[in-house]
Amino acid sequence: MRAVVIDGPGSVRVDTRPDPALTGPDGIIVAVGAAGICGSDLHFYDGEYPLAAPVALGHEAVGTVVETGPQVRTVAVGDQVMVSSVAGCGGCEGCATGDPARCRLGPQVFGSGALGGAQADLLAVPAADFQVLKVPDGITTEQALLLTDNLATGWAAARRADIPFGGTVAVIGLGAVGLCALRCAFLQGAATVFAADRVDGRLGRAAAWGATPVGSPAVEAVLAATGGRGADSVIDAVGTDASLTDALSAVRPGGTVSVVGVHDLQPFPLPALACLLRSITLRLTIAPVQRTWPELIALLQSGRLDVDGIFTTTLPLDEAAQGYAIAGSRSGDNVKVMLRP
Amino acid sequence: MRAVVIDGPGSVRVDTRPDPALTGPDGIIVAVGAAGICGSDLHFYDGEYPLAAPVALGHEAVGTVVETGPQVRTVAVGDQVMVSSVAGCGGCEGCATGDPARCRLGPQVFGSGALGGAQADLLAVPAADFQVLKVPDGITTEQALLLTDNLATGWAAARRADIPFGGTVAVIGLGAVGLCALRCAFLQGAATVFAADRVDGRLGRAAAWGATPVGSPAVEAVLAATGGRGADSVIDAVGTDASLTDALSAVRPGGTVSVVGVHDLQPFPLPALACLLRSITLRLTIAPVQRTWPELIALLQSGRLDVDGIFTTTLPLDEAAQGYAIAGSRSGDNVKVMLRP
Amino acid sequence: MRAVVIDGPGSVRVDTRPDPALTGPDGIIVAVGAAGICGSDLHFYDGEYPLAAPVALGHEAVGTVVETGPQVRTVAVGDQVMVSSVAGCGGCEGCATGDPARCRLGPQVFGSGALGGAQADLLAVPAADFQVLKVPDGITTEQALLLTDNLATGWAAARRADIPFGGTVAVIGLGAVGLCALRCAFLQGAATVFAADRVDGRLGRAAAWGATPVGSPAVEAVLAATGGRGADSVIDAVGTDASLTDALSAVRPGGTVSVVGVHDLQPFPLPALACLLRSITLRLTIAPVQRTWPELIALLQSGRLDVDGIFTTTLPLDEAAQGYAIAGSRSGDNVKVMLRP
Amino acid sequence: MRAVVIDGPGSVRVDTRPDPALTGPDGIIVAVGAAGICGSDLHFYDGEYPLAAPVALGHEAVGTVVETGPQVRTVAVGDQVMVSSVAGCGGCEGCATGDPARCRLGPQVFGSGALGGAQADLLAVPAADFQVLKVPDGITTEQALLLTDNLATGWAAARRADIPFGGTVAVIGLGAVGLCALRCAFLQGAATVFAADRVDGRLGRAAAWGATPVGSPAVEAVLAATGGRGADSVIDAVGTDASLTDALSAVRPGGTVSVVGVHDLQPFPLPALACLLRSITLRLTIAPVQRTWPELIALLQSGRLDVDGIFTTTLPLDEAAQGYAIAGSRSGDNVKVMLRP
Repeated sequence: MRAVVIDGPGSVRVDTRPDPALTGPDGIIVAVGAAGICGSDLHFYDGEYPLAAPVALGHEAVGTVVETGPQVRTVAVGDQVMVSSVAGCGGCEGCATGDPARCRLGPQVFGSGALGGAQADLLAVPAADFQVLKVPDGITTEQALLLTDNLATGWAAARRADIPFGGTVAVIGLGAVGLCALRCAFLQGAATVFAADRVDGRLGRAAAWGATPVGSPAVEAVLAATGGRGADSVIDAVGTDASLTDALSAVRPGGTVSVVGVHDLQPFPLPALACLLRSITLRLTIAPVQRTWPELIALLQSGRLDVDGIFTTTLPLDEAAQGYAIAGSRSGDNVKVMLRP
Repeated sequence: MRAVVIDGPGSVRVDTRPDPALTGPDGIIVAVGAAGICGSDLHFYDGEYPLAAPVALGHEAVGTVVETGPQVRTVAVGDQVMVSSVAGCGGCEGCATGDPARCRLGPQVFGSGALGGAQADLLAVPAADFQVLKVPDGITTEQALLLTDNLATGWAAARRADIPFGGTVAVIGLGAVGLCALRCAFLQGAATVFAADRVDGRLGRAAAWGATPVGSPAVEAVLAATGGRGADSVIDAVGTDASLTDALSAVRPGGTVSVVGVHDLQPFPLPALACLLRSITLRLTIAPVQRTWPELIALLQSGRLDVDGIFTTTLPLDEAAQGYAIAGSRSGDNVKVMLRP
Repeated sequence: MRAVVIDGPGSVRVDTRPDPALTGPDGIIVAVGAAGICGSDLHFYDGEYPLAAPVALGHEAVGTVVETGPQVRTVAVGDQVMVSSVAGCGGCEGCATGDPARCRLGPQVFGSGALGGAQADLLAVPAADFQVLKVPDGITTEQALLLTDNLATGWAAARRADIPFGGTVAVIGLGAVGLCALRCAFLQGAATVFAADRVDGRLGRAAAWGATPVGSPAVEAVLAATGGRGADSVIDAVGTDASLTDALSAVRPGGTVSVVGVHDLQPFPLPALACLLRSITLRLTIAPVQRTWPELIALLQSGRLDVDGIFTTTLPLDEAAQGYAIAGSRSGDNVKVMLRP
Repeated sequence: MRAVVIDGPGSVRVDTRPDPALTGPDGIIVAVGAAGICGSDLHFYDGEYPLAAPVALGHEAVGTVVETGPQVRTVAVGDQVMVSSVAGCGGCEGCATGDPARCRLGPQVFGSGALGGAQADLLAVPAADFQVLKVPDGITTEQALLLTDNLATGWAAARRADIPFGGTVAVIGLGAVGLCALRCAFLQGAATVFAADRVDGRLGRAAAWGATPVGSPAVEAVLAATGGRGADSVIDAVGTDASLTDALSAVRPGGTVSVVGVHDLQPFPLPALACLLRSITLRLTIAPVQRTWPELIALLQSGRLDVDGIFTTTLPLDEAAQGYAIAGSRSGDNVKVMLRP
């Protein structure tokens, strides 16, 4: 089969690899119909994570079940399914909460070495009853693909930001996750969402979705707009020292900074004393993807949640290198790339 | 009047200073009857915070009201009062939550430069209706003094640790705050509390209070006792890079580290990526002292909460230097020192 | 001054009464600019509450401060204010929560005998710092008048209905409170709101606001739409035995019925055993008006919350009898009447 | 096998019945080692529920697995298990919450007609992976038997009573459930628990466990002790019109009444208007037994929760009639009866 692999910074290509086998009796094989390129894929692309060997990329997949292990109960060959980007064993106390980050084995992310990559013709999925869901009625492919990661992450970012009803939120970084978080913050009761980015096109998109666009860093604009108090909740959807510093400066005393932007391997210099004197809560979150699904699916099906327009480019799998170049440019017109195997 | 001042590392003396005047029409003057030496006073004593000039020390005071401004409504001359170690303006939206950390002016701590020190004959208290409370019936001087800071801090540490009912907690550092936090963790529903310190006498005390003593760092013992999972909640009552690193290692995925130990001025190197992959919540907290009082007073009055034995030394104010030497030794037999002006 | 009074069922007139005096040093006099007729006024109009003597009606008022007692701090003569329909002493532990229902004296409602009626030229307001708020920037008279009662009630109805994010809600009764509750349920994260009434015009309005209209009783439609499960949360905005029975039948096991419709004096025959076997929560609520204001004002100011169109009739005070006749007709075209003194 | 059956009011006998068969491939057969007589069994004994035919009684069982269906994963022949008194299908969204009251099929209670009775030699348990748990290390038979119902009910009663930390609770009815609720209220942070009953022996027991004994009805004593305010939370562990009226009178405005006492078939005359004006929450609860187990087992194992002494009588199964006579007497010396097949 074909699979997108990365050899080193900026070097992405489509490789031919053996078809994957079932990981075990609880596994399935999915013929990928659509795969997303995610901001966290760009950590590899930008060279922030060292590569010992080529890695098969991609952790966002929607597709058709083509093989199932004998223990699989909830899906069958031919079903259209979405696959959680984060995988757990499915059988432990942690997984019972719907949060693979709490799996006793630790969370595993597709396309980062341990599991196969989703940007491929086929994907082997372990513990499928936990990891996948039949695409529900009324959910589009774009929505399903966002549910595998970015929308789940944006929703969790907001849930873990302690947004008070009528509260003020700042979202730093308006990629796909930030834009999803913006929508989710409103659905969770925010009155005002400041949306910060350096790219005009993204700010315009955020404004069209009801947010108040501000430059980056956001801190000055947020403090000015809140009488010097700061936002109740700040969502860091970038994951750099600069964005987290901005977030910690823009949050009000007693408020919460919710980080879903994925940092590189370096420690962040946390101003611990200043944070203590301001009673700050800092939450870092890898999305509890499976747990978010019932809430998000109900909101999508009813039309309360609208994330149309986040995918700005669709390319065949063979043009993955171009897809990465577009995603890596982080321009205003391009938010997210879908690859179609 | 007499006041304890610090000139530099290890150099504490009793000075003669002018009697303080009312800070304004909402202020009072308290004749201090008992003042505590707190672990955070030791930051000055140990030389971790630079001193531009001598600082009048102490932020824990119980005493008698000797003068009131004309706007004061809730206390009168002659009343025995306890004074919150953390002060707010009392009139803003933040103070209305009972949490001076959310004061629009920022929190102010007595005895750290801006406000007078509590280890003195007299203490001027601004916004007294917010800052002080008549010592309620059945509350002893020791309890009242702990309510001004350490017990409020221990309670808040536990409240902000997201302790599940029946959960497992680790408390790192068994000074007065850690011991209070231990008691509070049980009152908030913990089944098991691991108590970590390097000093045997303190471990024995924690064991007598129902905790499971472990050495320091705690991480190995906690992981061993929880099947490798980690504690639901970890309270860092030390406030060093080592203690916070230990706390972050000992907490389970999805768990909370609640920091009330006061750091020095250096940033803490936060392992952001590792914390994100484990969905960790990190809360840093300066106690919302006033907000904790109704809950804690009810628990103390009913006898459900017992913090007797935390004060291990009582000295006259004139022997403050000796008091600091004892407190600074952090030995097993000595937990906390009370000064009696 | 003029005041609307009721002599008996259906008998409303404008009377001449002495101008009210300050109730005390913490009171104010408000020259009423706009007063609402509320569904609960109709209990008097419909003869459900016996009257020993004529009662001055009305508990919803927006107006101008014309006199203040010496202890009043937050408003001054000339200020435009909105007056909470529910009054508390303002000084007790209960009032400190912002909920006059928790006042140690019990809640008092304007226009029901104990306090003056808001449908008058002048209204005496006790404990004004607790009871009134300057109409904030950007808040219209219609919005301010809804904030004194109906919108606060709708918001509280939803808050106390335990609506899960993405949840299913049923609102029974589409008068002003029900329509407000519908909007609030969406703002608090509902995916689907079933709106039940017998009047087509009201159902059309609810549909235009995003709800799913159903007839009354709602139970069959709700069960059919939820696969027999029932709604997560049901809001009873009518307050009759029939509406509450419908609500208890339409809620899912483990769900919550939130009652804000005001019952008459007869007890409701609660099917206790059936409710226990289904683990039902039943909340009855008189709005904690003051506590809802910060949240609601932020949502109104940002435009997230839109309650325009609820007032369908505006009349001069002298035409109060006609206003009551319109309100009492509960027709589809008329939702709420505003009287202008 | 032998089974306890009831023919009519007061008429309990040990009958010979065919051994039960597996209910299906997910079922097990348990050889009952210990079964409890519960207060709700007495509804049959007292003639409050009409009987069309003799009913096999008992819903509290601990025993040994003697047969398993092929789909059972979590227990094996020879295991000691405790059986939830409330059964669900184990496979629906509701059961996934651990609460069989939310089962799409409705909750089923053993020994009330639909399922077999636990007071027997053998008990057939459907959906065993959901319904039973191996008795954990360190849990005694008495504890395990209480975990099947009464302790789970007491815990849930307290959880659903919205007990604030440091709060005041009243428990009405000091049978096994009330005594368990009393302990649980303290573990959930109550400062004061008023314990109401008419039987001196039970009041003495409650006092020994830290509660404040009061007569029945409790309202006068509770109001007197709270300055007229009422308790934050009231737990009705009786389930009569009188006990619920007492509970509604003794709770403070804004407080919660949590009902776990099982009512008869008559509706309760709820004073709806009075409850609305006081913003009361009324929760009725059949225990979500399975969901309570992790919390309760951790608290029992650590020794924080102590329910020893609740079983006051142990009899062989053949003396069931005497057991019912003792339980039905509701005397001070007898709290709960265990039958040993």
